[in-house]
Amino acid sequence: MCRLAAYLGPSLCLKNFLQDPPHNLINQSWAPREMHEAVLNADGFGFGWYTNEGKIATYKSTHPIWSDTNINGLSESLDSQCWLANVRSATPGQATDIVNTQPFTDDKIIFMHNGFITHFNPDIKTRFHEHLSPAVQANINGCTDSEYIFALVRQHYHSSGTTYDKSLNRALTDFPSLLAEGAALLNIVMTDGQTLYVVRHAINDQCPSLYYTKEEESFPNAYLVASERMTESDCWQAVPEHCLLILSAQNDPVYISL
Amino acid sequence: MCRLAAYLGPSLCLKNFLQDPPHNLINQSWAPREMHEAVLNADGFGFGWYTNEGKIATYKSTHPIWSDTNINGLSESLDSQCWLANVRSATPGQATDIVNTQPFTDDKIIFMHNGFITHFNPDIKTRFHEHLSPAVQANINGCTDSEYIFALVRQHYHSSGTTYDKSLNRALTDFPSLLAEGAALLNIVMTDGQTLYVVRHAINDQCPSLYYTKEEESFPNAYLVASERMTESDCWQAVPEHCLLILSAQNDPVYISL
Amino acid sequence: MCRLAAYLGPSLCLKNFLQDPPHNLINQSWAPREMHEAVLNADGFGFGWYTNEGKIATYKSTHPIWSDTNINGLSESLDSQCWLANVRSATPGQATDIVNTQPFTDDKIIFMHNGFITHFNPDIKTRFHEHLSPAVQANINGCTDSEYIFALVRQHYHSSGTTYDKSLNRALTDFPSLLAEGAALLNIVMTDGQTLYVVRHAINDQCPSLYYTKEEESFPNAYLVASERMTESDCWQAVPEHCLLILSAQNDPVYISL
Amino acid sequence: MCRLAAYLGPSLCLKNFLQDPPHNLINQSWAPREMHEAVLNADGFGFGWYTNEGKIATYKSTHPIWSDTNINGLSESLDSQCWLANVRSATPGQATDIVNTQPFTDDKIIFMHNGFITHFNPDIKTRFHEHLSPAVQANINGCTDSEYIFALVRQHYHSSGTTYDKSLNRALTDFPSLLAEGAALLNIVMTDGQTLYVVRHAINDQCPSLYYTKEEESFPNAYLVASERMTESDCWQAVPEHCLLILSAQNDPVYISL
Repeated sequence: MCRLAAYLGPSLCLKNFLQDPPHNLINQSWAPREMHEAVLNADGFGFGWYTNEGKIATYKSTHPIWSDTNINGLSESLDSQCWLANVRSATPGQATDIVNTQPFTDDKIIFMHNGFITHFNPDIKTRFHEHLSPAVQANINGCTDSEYIFALVRQHYHSSGTTYDKSLNRALTDFPSLLAEGAALLNIVMTDGQTLYVVRHAINDQCPSLYYTKEEESFPNAYLVASERMTESDCWQAVPEHCLLILSAQNDPVYISL
Repeated sequence: MCRLAAYLGPSLCLKNFLQDPPHNLINQSWAPREMHEAVLNADGFGFGWYTNEGKIATYKSTHPIWSDTNINGLSESLDSQCWLANVRSATPGQATDIVNTQPFTDDKIIFMHNGFITHFNPDIKTRFHEHLSPAVQANINGCTDSEYIFALVRQHYHSSGTTYDKSLNRALTDFPSLLAEGAALLNIVMTDGQTLYVVRHAINDQCPSLYYTKEEESFPNAYLVASERMTESDCWQAVPEHCLLILSAQNDPVYISL
Repeated sequence: MCRLAAYLGPSLCLKNFLQDPPHNLINQSWAPREMHEAVLNADGFGFGWYTNEGKIATYKSTHPIWSDTNINGLSESLDSQCWLANVRSATPGQATDIVNTQPFTDDKIIFMHNGFITHFNPDIKTRFHEHLSPAVQANINGCTDSEYIFALVRQHYHSSGTTYDKSLNRALTDFPSLLAEGAALLNIVMTDGQTLYVVRHAINDQCPSLYYTKEEESFPNAYLVASERMTESDCWQAVPEHCLLILSAQNDPVYISL
Repeated sequence: MCRLAAYLGPSLCLKNFLQDPPHNLINQSWAPREMHEAVLNADGFGFGWYTNEGKIATYKSTHPIWSDTNINGLSESLDSQCWLANVRSATPGQATDIVNTQPFTDDKIIFMHNGFITHFNPDIKTRFHEHLSPAVQANINGCTDSEYIFALVRQHYHSSGTTYDKSLNRALTDFPSLLAEGAALLNIVMTDGQTLYVVRHAINDQCPSLYYTKEEESFPNAYLVASERMTESDCWQAVPEHCLLILSAQNDPVYISL
């Protein structure tokens, strides 16, 4: 399990998103309130953003976020219209490598998964290898269930030349057969920099917590998404369970049942 | 705050000490039961031992102990008659460097401190620099209160050519004037490989928890010391508060009031 | 490229193998003499051994070997009849993760590859995914060419229930079709703890250097294998090019042409 | 030894300074041309800058700069009018901790030292502890000669309320008595964000290389300082030996003999 957060709106200093909110992601790393499967998120962290030229950039560390001495300087110096951030609680005994630290990216997308697939290794992981094309598999660099979920989304996107939301939807549709009797927690936040694709979902288990808002006064005209409400405001709404929520500046939120 | 543990007895495989007990130090790192000043110990860890030739050796990491992939192999391969181990909860915002990771050592001694000095930096740290000799200061490599406490013990040992227990006692006697109005939690375990010097102490605050036993069946003829009882056996005794306890194979425990 | 070394013989302290030889692996990490494809090996290191109970153990780090502060203590405390060690020069821009640090292991084997596959990612990596069974792929954790070569060896071993040397030989036989026009440097040292399987090989390129000896006076009755001669003795022999060399205590060396 | 570089001029993207020049600091880390005391700089790196609000920020890592996966994203996203950067070659056997990674900072100054003090530990380090005030010592966090040199500069600045250049000059004047018969390489670059204070100096040894220019076409109206010329242009000048050079936008360069 992990805790994640995202921002989409006017250009914002990282500090305002990552450090200023009272229950920010740093607090959620060592004092999560709504996390049932682990007690802390100390196995690394990462955040992703888009540069002024629209390129994807990431910062990742294998250490707990609270002991990172680069954060203060970076968070006052980096601005973006879109932020995704994640603190990790790894499977015990697994090295906390950069390659397994979210968010994951390809040329255009930043992707984060919060949850896990039970008995992923080796049974369900083997089924993913049967299901994914060799070319998609060749782009997998680590060994986490999260990266395989991202690979599945990319397989649908590249094979069908379709939209991101449909690729995400189809990937989730594949899950019951991949899992067989198994269970999965499947909260996802994915973006192309213009739109946030937000999934709150679980199969044979409870959906993890996930909230969003566009009404937080300290973030005007912006969408926020987070595993736990980052502020005390009552503007935060739970993302509906088993739902793909699509958020963009131009349109009203779109809710797609899964 | 940290959690610490020590072993003195017949040659023992590290695994038996570090991994086998039901409430071992790895569990204490993420689920401590009696730690009031922090919620977890994820800011690195270390252990020290004596080689067959009587040399001191240490293993230290800046990552949480539960994600260390070297531990399993090492713990089955390393044997010693004396083990000291420590999981760290660092002061927030401080990089989790090796140089600040306990245990600390000099030629003959392995030293660990569990606790902290309030307002150490810069006021009380400055007083330590006034109090310590330049030669002792030149052997300080990091910046933690724990390392300065160790330096104070070494100053007394080298200046007076006295015993370790007296050096420890005199170092603790210096504390009220170094602290002025301040407070300190001062649990210490120190060894020369033959004797464990165990301190449970605090000034202007509550003593942290500390236990010991020589009656644990799974560790025959051995002393165990730990911040929290490592087994369910009722053989564990609290180290008396404000006490220096001296444990060695040859003698009965010695209790010195502080 | 990397530098590697192995030992098989009477139980030996790690220090004698890793630190004592005049041109040991630590020197080879920052001052290699016969490495043409890179100038240094600073991207992590690792070593593997067998415990007294015959279990495999490894120690890996992502930092340069010369700045590792655990090495001195460990090298005086660890003994084994079989040592494999490796210093890494990673592909530029790739994070130096534990998961990508050699040696690699499965239940019985320790494996190291010195070399690389040109244009591995994505073209030849994709061909490996076409060629490997889903179950074998599910045991791949990182993204290096070396780990995929190890996977190919395991595929042959598990599918045919054959010997290690035949599995290695068959894996190398697969290479021309996997590479197509491409090139690969394929020095390998693999062991089950009783036998060293040593490959010096390249396809469409020059074989990297590789030496062995059983006559080094400071290592009586033992085999040594290394990318560069570790001592000044003239007992070291070049492993023949395009050869699988099999070394064990009981038998004379066996040379198999590739 | 290390390699260092600095920039002062119009606001510049980090990429233009750190990655674009043909012989940039990343190349100097693994292929230095004018470094006599070591062969590479793989023991961490760091850079410092000023935020838009004039605050000091730093990014530091203990890994080699060429394997850092955060650099690409950060270098395209960070802008500053003043950059200082450093790649480190540590004393062998010393852990490559963040606390010992340059640049060092206080509230207003960013400081880097390229060189070393022979026999620093423990003899000359002890003399520094005799010479420095307790308050200045309390701000030392690591154990490198470079940090002690910075402490000496700060002692002069705070005790005399004088200018930075005079503090630097007086610190260097203290050196002969601190070193006694010893030697030191003392290249320094220090800044308050408006002015670069550049020292090329050595005592009882040769000055390390150091260059500067204001005529590099790809960096208009800016000063560059670097251990090795970063571009092929012949506009680079050697900083005179035993000289403190003061560079600022408003004034002509000032040369002060040491």
